[in-house]
Amino acid sequence: MKQNDEKRLVIAALGGVNEIGKNMYLVQYGDDIVVIDCGSKFPDESLLGIDLIIPDISYLLSNKDKVRALVVTHGHEDHIGGIPYFLKQMPVPIYGSRLTLGLIEIKLREHGILHETSMTCINADSQIELGTIICSFFPTNHSIPDCLGVVFDTPEGTIVHTGDFKFDMTPVNKQYPDLHRMAEIGKKGVRVLLSESTNAERPGFTASESTVGAHLLEAFNKAEGRVFVSTFASNVYRLQQVIDAAVQTNRKLSLLGRTMVNVVSVAQELGYLSVPSGMIIDVQEAAKLPPEQCTVLCTGSQGEPMAALARLAASSHRQMKVDIGDTVIIAANPIPGNERNVARIIDNLYALGAKIIYGSRSELHVSGHGNQEELKLMLTLMKPEYFIPIHGEYRMLYLHRELAESVGVQRENVFILKNGEVVESVNGVVRQSGHISAGQTLVDGFGIGDIGNIVLRDRRQLSDDGILIVVITVSKAEGKLLTDPDTISRGFVYVRNSEELIEDINQLVIGTVEKMQHEKINQWSVMKKTLKDTLGQFLYARTQRRPIILPIIIEV
Amino acid sequence: MKQNDEKRLVIAALGGVNEIGKNMYLVQYGDDIVVIDCGSKFPDESLLGIDLIIPDISYLLSNKDKVRALVVTHGHEDHIGGIPYFLKQMPVPIYGSRLTLGLIEIKLREHGILHETSMTCINADSQIELGTIICSFFPTNHSIPDCLGVVFDTPEGTIVHTGDFKFDMTPVNKQYPDLHRMAEIGKKGVRVLLSESTNAERPGFTASESTVGAHLLEAFNKAEGRVFVSTFASNVYRLQQVIDAAVQTNRKLSLLGRTMVNVVSVAQELGYLSVPSGMIIDVQEAAKLPPEQCTVLCTGSQGEPMAALARLAASSHRQMKVDIGDTVIIAANPIPGNERNVARIIDNLYALGAKIIYGSRSELHVSGHGNQEELKLMLTLMKPEYFIPIHGEYRMLYLHRELAESVGVQRENVFILKNGEVVESVNGVVRQSGHISAGQTLVDGFGIGDIGNIVLRDRRQLSDDGILIVVITVSKAEGKLLTDPDTISRGFVYVRNSEELIEDINQLVIGTVEKMQHEKINQWSVMKKTLKDTLGQFLYARTQRRPIILPIIIEV
Repeated sequence: MKQNDEKRLVIAALGGVNEIGKNMYLVQYGDDIVVIDCGSKFPDESLLGIDLIIPDISYLLSNKDKVRALVVTHGHEDHIGGIPYFLKQMPVPIYGSRLTLGLIEIKLREHGILHETSMTCINADSQIELGTIICSFFPTNHSIPDCLGVVFDTPEGTIVHTGDFKFDMTPVNKQYPDLHRMAEIGKKGVRVLLSESTNAERPGFTASESTVGAHLLEAFNKAEGRVFVSTFASNVYRLQQVIDAAVQTNRKLSLLGRTMVNVVSVAQELGYLSVPSGMIIDVQEAAKLPPEQCTVLCTGSQGEPMAALARLAASSHRQMKVDIGDTVIIAANPIPGNERNVARIIDNLYALGAKIIYGSRSELHVSGHGNQEELKLMLTLMKPEYFIPIHGEYRMLYLHRELAESVGVQRENVFILKNGEVVESVNGVVRQSGHISAGQTLVDGFGIGDIGNIVLRDRRQLSDDGILIVVITVSKAEGKLLTDPDTISRGFVYVRNSEELIEDINQLVIGTVEKMQHEKINQWSVMKKTLKDTLGQFLYARTQRRPIILPIIIEV
Repeated sequence: MKQNDEKRLVIAALGGVNEIGKNMYLVQYGDDIVVIDCGSKFPDESLLGIDLIIPDISYLLSNKDKVRALVVTHGHEDHIGGIPYFLKQMPVPIYGSRLTLGLIEIKLREHGILHETSMTCINADSQIELGTIICSFFPTNHSIPDCLGVVFDTPEGTIVHTGDFKFDMTPVNKQYPDLHRMAEIGKKGVRVLLSESTNAERPGFTASESTVGAHLLEAFNKAEGRVFVSTFASNVYRLQQVIDAAVQTNRKLSLLGRTMVNVVSVAQELGYLSVPSGMIIDVQEAAKLPPEQCTVLCTGSQGEPMAALARLAASSHRQMKVDIGDTVIIAANPIPGNERNVARIIDNLYALGAKIIYGSRSELHVSGHGNQEELKLMLTLMKPEYFIPIHGEYRMLYLHRELAESVGVQRENVFILKNGEVVESVNGVVRQSGHISAGQTLVDGFGIGDIGNIVLRDRRQLSDDGILIVVITVSKAEGKLLTDPDTISRGFVYVRNSEELIEDINQLVIGTVEKMQHEKINQWSVMKKTLKDTLGQFLYARTQRRPIILPIIIEV
């Protein structure tokens, strides 16, 4: 990025385009950078052993003195999951709504950096000045309370970032989307709109969260034993509706799963959940109640193998169990990639004799993201001159562009970006221009960014075909073998069942070493490479497998 | 199984219950065993490096002289994929319909055992005597032509195995389900029905395959450039409808993907596909045609990374490419577990500027399996005394039992089995009784059944956290370290970036060895275990990772 452009406006994604997850965007004017969100995402199956992916923030690190604030739109993991890692490298002030900050606090406490962090609570009426950039906000609906869209007033015009949204005209807890405010912003003129694209593939209008309540109550009314409900812990509206159904059917409520306990505690404390006193009881107590008086709210609706629902399904939860006649409600759709794990849990629950209510036909889940008509509604309200579809995989961004065109945005004014690609505005001229560094930082245990392509490539080969280690001892003087080779397999074959193969390997090693000795090859590197190649070819021909082959030569 | 029960009827699954895939069932009366199907399935993500799963046939191997035949219901992989491995261990006569045998032949040729195999073609009018068991057949509909249900007349009554089915009253190629024959079988009396459960979760009636044709033609009519269609190669009805649409829009057809070429060739040869002469052209020729005259039928609709569609999407196919303005039709729904791979391909295709038609809303795919109303129709036609739901995961079997009850089957007469569990009939008394050995045999490269739990457990640990190898050389006499330890990492950390960690590991090893020397511990096994434990604790505390730790001690 050009250093001398003091009057240049820059918009870029550090995460969140061409992917679902690790959202992080920036708006920069001259020397003022405002960061929006800092999410994490889970690795796909190709990133073996990786725990979490967070955005690469090297651009921000090299512009440390310019970063004025981190503004957070809402409290979902794909918007806040990377915050502790970010703050440890550059402590900047955080702005977010009450619930959002409450959820961030849990993370900061876990990472031991709560007290040194500056957090400022904002709401729809707030206005914050961050250098030359003035931020204001508008309330939206989503599957978590207290979501905000962000308006950036800059010398190059108004930029709007929607955050995640749907248009729910009959919301739970009356958290309405502020259509009038959005109309006002649009009327004043929006230079560039960044709008989320999650449901750009889905026609129509997403159902209201409040439709779930009636179906929940119906299920509770029919239930004879205990009722277990598994859903996203952060969907406080859903939790409220579960609590309401439990109240109406005279059931107590117990919570299973650390995240569920944490979120309910924060949401209750901040007044986002209304729970009659004495309603929530300890799980040991709940286990002793007559089943028809008991409701359990639990984590694990995505089939996570260590979460409460999976443990209940496997009868391995120590304090609670699912019995014949109990009802289990999975009030969530599996996110792509989780279908098999969820299906396994349903199988296990059926085998326990429970009644299971799951799947899209049950109408116990609605999306938190707006469908095509809602995306068009946002575009129509904001009437942007330029449009950047964000928060989605490529096909979603692509289809969002088509929606934008259908409501009158010029096709050439839509930018489908990759992470790091820059849209700039200079003297009113908006165009795509260059890029800043962006990418993914892998978290594995305590290691942040220390796992690279070589380690991952090794893990892939190890996971497919294991490793074969051959240890030989040779005399320093003549390169002569002093003992028989020692062959060790991990993940390749089970040595005790493969005596013949191991014997053939050893003979091949002895033959190869003798041949090299004969040819007076005594450089270690050449010996190792020769052994590796010879064994590799032999093993592939014999087994059609390609283990990592590691010759260890000890010279004495 | 009791050896002296000459008049005992046995029914069991060797594969196919509590799973989708590797179907294999047996009906045995006294000394006569008839095997139905021998399928394979693909491993899930927990079986690292495994290529294929086939049924464990040890029960059949220990009753080799009793196995009279393998009867195959249809030519899908989950019903024929294990046949070559089975035949290599016990060559038995195979019975199947014409297309089924045609597809089996391709496999046997690849495995070099075509000529020594006895294959007999059967159809709906065939009757075969296999010892005391008389087999006859009835035609059903499915997503591949020439499917048969099987009727076993035994001294203990009539057993019916449906194979895979739907009820398609307007089938492509007029391959009608024979309702009258099924009614007749039911009227005569069915002792035990085995019926497939794939769609037991889905209400209603599956749409007819012929509904796809109209949507295909519409897409072809709108298309301007090339039309690429990816679908299951074995769905010959679907292929026919693609060919018909191409004919009507004056396009030539080219085939991409080995399976597609194989199936089209067999289906054409046997008269299941009607293709105007000169219609199918070589891919090089197709690439030269004006785009609006070109259709490409290709494999890869499940997102398989090496199949034709994935290569087209990645622009890495050598002979054909997808251009701006081309249309790509994915006429298949992703099987659970494949969603992400399919989504990635759609993203790539959009980035190439193609128009993509995909997803259930496109109505370019219908299931080959009957929904709840069709399962009830089969149960009603067959009126079985006893019922075994097969071909499905547990929840599907469970829900199929509920459907059976709803149409009048007694709940206690329904057996939900695990693979290997036996239903017997002795003197008219039918009950669940004992089990025979059953399980999964893992194929990895050329190895069949040689990969067991230890190797898989190692692969899992290796894939998560890699391996750390520490080589030390000690003197035979005093157990004293002769050189510095040599530390090798594969998939744990990248050594060059972790010098400090490696140095700390080496110091820990030196300290541990000196301590053991001091304590006069010189048994290798104790030394190794001590090093492993000490390093394991250190590395977990330092990195929160648990690599396999392999100390190698060389005594000189």
